[in-house]
Amino acid sequence: MIERLNHVAIATPDVAAAAALYRGALGATVSEPQDLPAHGVRVVFVTLANTKVELLEPLGDKSPIAAFLEKNPAGGLHHVCYEVSDIGAATARLVAEGARVLGDGTPRIGAHGKPVVFIHPKDIGGVLTELEEI
Amino acid sequence: MIERLNHVAIATPDVAAAAALYRGALGATVSEPQDLPAHGVRVVFVTLANTKVELLEPLGDKSPIAAFLEKNPAGGLHHVCYEVSDIGAATARLVAEGARVLGDGTPRIGAHGKPVVFIHPKDIGGVLTELEEI
Repeated sequence: MIERLNHVAIATPDVAAAAALYRGALGATVSEPQDLPAHGVRVVFVTLANTKVELLEPLGDKSPIAAFLEKNPAGGLHHVCYEVSDIGAATARLVAEGARVLGDGTPRIGAHGKPVVFIHPKDIGGVLTELEEI
Repeated sequence: MIERLNHVAIATPDVAAAAALYRGALGATVSEPQDLPAHGVRVVFVTLANTKVELLEPLGDKSPIAAFLEKNPAGGLHHVCYEVSDIGAATARLVAEGARVLGDGTPRIGAHGKPVVFIHPKDIGGVLTELEEI
């Protein structure tokens, strides 16, 4: 069911500083920051040869990463996102296997404009896990 | 400098249970558990189309993931590993940029039999980051 790793998301209190670090210390290719107000994040994309890392800074009052940064003020690994070909079938399989989907249990449009679900971390080994239909 | 994402490592108290979850709920291709006593872990590889996830359970008395699981008993995202073509040059660049390398500061042989370094999480945005020479 899961196919490619779409991205690894890293939360940070300062995405510009994080981007400078990835560019400088790791020699990575990083994008300019982009604001995604509908998703409550400012994002920098780190392009790797086979996938990407997304550096996320909270944006606005209701950012979905604000609580994580309260617990982890320096930032840290936030979630992983796997690609699936059929988000409806993927969601049905998760539910059949006893895993809860966050929100109302149905796919919504994610930050890349495609349907996504997030699996409850408690049902998948403590890891916030996103599935995105590609 | 960093090229491919080699793997995402997830710590778990029970790698067999985690493997069953990845196979069942996520429909992933998972390996049999392998013991790596020299590295203090039992590992299951989750094969994705473009990279892999390593599910790690502590093995032995001095497992490098034991402290993480004390803080996160259900498991969670532990580290990411990027590939570099020259681990010596990569280490020199990190040090020049002010990032500390764990251990004695020189590459050692990692779990895949190749030279690796780990960057101190405090110097790279709270993320335990491994570089592996490929």
